[in-house]
Amino acid sequence: MKNIRYAFLIGIIIGGFTFAGCAQNEYMDPANRKLQEAYVGGDFYPVKHYQQSTRKKRPKNVILMIGDGMGLAQVYAGLTANGGHLYLENFKHIGFSKTYSSDNYITDSAAGGTALACGEKTYNGAIGVNPQKQPIVNIRELAEKKGLETGLVSTSAITHATPASFIAHQPSRNMYEAIAADFINSGIDVFIGGGVDHFEKRKDGRNLSDELRKDGYQVLYNMYNISQVTSGKLAGLTAPIHNPAEPERGNMLVQSTNTALNILSQNKKGYFIMIEGSQIDWGGHANKTPYVVEEMLDFDQAIGAALKHAAQDGETLIIVTADHETGGMSINEGDMATGKVVGEYTTGHHTGIMVPVYAFGPGAEQFTGMMENTDIQKKIKDLLDL
Amino acid sequence: MKNIRYAFLIGIIIGGFTFAGCAQNEYMDPANRKLQEAYVGGDFYPVKHYQQSTRKKRPKNVILMIGDGMGLAQVYAGLTANGGHLYLENFKHIGFSKTYSSDNYITDSAAGGTALACGEKTYNGAIGVNPQKQPIVNIRELAEKKGLETGLVSTSAITHATPASFIAHQPSRNMYEAIAADFINSGIDVFIGGGVDHFEKRKDGRNLSDELRKDGYQVLYNMYNISQVTSGKLAGLTAPIHNPAEPERGNMLVQSTNTALNILSQNKKGYFIMIEGSQIDWGGHANKTPYVVEEMLDFDQAIGAALKHAAQDGETLIIVTADHETGGMSINEGDMATGKVVGEYTTGHHTGIMVPVYAFGPGAEQFTGMMENTDIQKKIKDLLDL
Repeated sequence: MKNIRYAFLIGIIIGGFTFAGCAQNEYMDPANRKLQEAYVGGDFYPVKHYQQSTRKKRPKNVILMIGDGMGLAQVYAGLTANGGHLYLENFKHIGFSKTYSSDNYITDSAAGGTALACGEKTYNGAIGVNPQKQPIVNIRELAEKKGLETGLVSTSAITHATPASFIAHQPSRNMYEAIAADFINSGIDVFIGGGVDHFEKRKDGRNLSDELRKDGYQVLYNMYNISQVTSGKLAGLTAPIHNPAEPERGNMLVQSTNTALNILSQNKKGYFIMIEGSQIDWGGHANKTPYVVEEMLDFDQAIGAALKHAAQDGETLIIVTADHETGGMSINEGDMATGKVVGEYTTGHHTGIMVPVYAFGPGAEQFTGMMENTDIQKKIKDLLDL
Repeated sequence: MKNIRYAFLIGIIIGGFTFAGCAQNEYMDPANRKLQEAYVGGDFYPVKHYQQSTRKKRPKNVILMIGDGMGLAQVYAGLTANGGHLYLENFKHIGFSKTYSSDNYITDSAAGGTALACGEKTYNGAIGVNPQKQPIVNIRELAEKKGLETGLVSTSAITHATPASFIAHQPSRNMYEAIAADFINSGIDVFIGGGVDHFEKRKDGRNLSDELRKDGYQVLYNMYNISQVTSGKLAGLTAPIHNPAEPERGNMLVQSTNTALNILSQNKKGYFIMIEGSQIDWGGHANKTPYVVEEMLDFDQAIGAALKHAAQDGETLIIVTADHETGGMSINEGDMATGKVVGEYTTGHHTGIMVPVYAFGPGAEQFTGMMENTDIQKKIKDLLDL
């Protein structure tokens, strides 16, 4: 009987410890969790300062930059990691965007992208269609119609929800091949991002790259060749599906931004381009602060490239915003001197918090205060008189 | 032997379940945790819209409103809880304040308050002294010197870190009685908040309320009497230490704001007042979303009262900001139609994220872009020519 009692007690203790061990890994070691999530700091890049020209009241060109999943915490994580400075500091006109979709307080990137592209709230998952699944015109199509040149740049597949919202009209973001087919006859002049497979390895047997070539596009597959292009129509397909994360991706986003802006800015009627830092979102989903920070800093350097263009010509409006926040990120420790950032997260999904809107250039004063995400499209439309 | 084996196994199971039960309470039931933290929604108040006058370039009066612990998530929690609208929507000039202190990436309210009051970063815990513990002049003192009337309003004790930073010079925020003594001969015209005990039940035997009366102050202890005052010096001491939380506190903050502004606005040279929504911070520390939301909405209604004054006279600048964010709050569920908000938190302490700055009135355009928390004091000083 005594043995039985001992065995029982030892069993309780072992059972308790075993469970404690399991719990430890998932929930109970905030110190380890933090360490895993910390960005340890790296080299800082210098941030140049640009003055907004007051010469023009209305923009000729619009650069819309979307940091996917880039809430205020993601911005400040990047700022801390770069020693207290970001190119975003150049923006003096600031607002906030309410990101909820037509069917959910928490938007996904499809409804978020469609709101920014088409100026209408729709259901999560929708690409360029309204809640009734009817196609709705996007700002890039309106710009094309008016004779502006248009472009898309993304660090994900170019068929992914955010860029797709500026080109396609499909009831679901998962219809990648249908989305790729919507590039044909879209009139788009330059697009650079991943997604070769959605153009070339298709169930319907079509080779969209060949169709694009017939339409006069230079279809190129690596950044060296892409960055040599100085004019004409360009389809840069840089990865089978998504581009790799930083640092493996290199400066693909900055190079793509410069290449696209060099080509588009030759059009006398102006241009509209959407440039996405896609993977800030993925860092948030993974609750990995180093991933968030590396992607945030990559996106900020693309903002720097855009600022250089806009400050030179004085007739380009840049708007930087996000479709939503990802991760419920907070910054619970940091060091401006070393660039160390310790992020913590409340979820692996998106959250509802409004996201910052930054504007620079003619018309920037329109993007201040709190606004609906759909207002951004309407303001661009008004400013470009589309 | 078989019995021993069974007892051992049963022990393991019971041990495991027992531990699971403990863990459940603290870590493992996010659903329950959420429910406890959810604000279920209530009556919405209507938000009036005010237009900023462009008549004057410089303000005669400045109202600095500090939402303690009010990060962007706290603002959006309030906005959602009020059906999608806040008085803060009236603010079209927006910036961000970097809140870190001289010795810590995460500031406390003392260093945060001192930065806003004195324009200098100092160590956590410092009230109106620099890192060398030397007194540094605050903006309210500069305003007094210039002949402006000055005031302080707070929902905490008026001796608490944030209001204390605008009156006192003490090496530690915990020296409440010393802080209270610093009100004597400070020149302040109106102050309303808790903290009777720090004025009247003191270790040194002084009765500061009697001293204030000798200096010509009306010393009053309840909101009914306080809100009847229309002129002269006023010390409103509304609670032994802190005022209760909402809804128990009633509309003490709105009433105090109106009372103080009515008195101060009679001065032809203008006024400076700091009004604090103290307990947004305490809701964040407690990780209680209903507490955060009730306090956020109370503070927003005080902002509404200030806006009414500022829009009427057209010569008052309102700045609304925070000293820091509290709780690492995120908004993981919500409903604009019902006002339901589900907050989640990463900490019971403050976090490092920059906080929004909202400005309305003459000079508001100075408060855009990213800035140091200390810049806010400098900008007010310049605008009032102090």
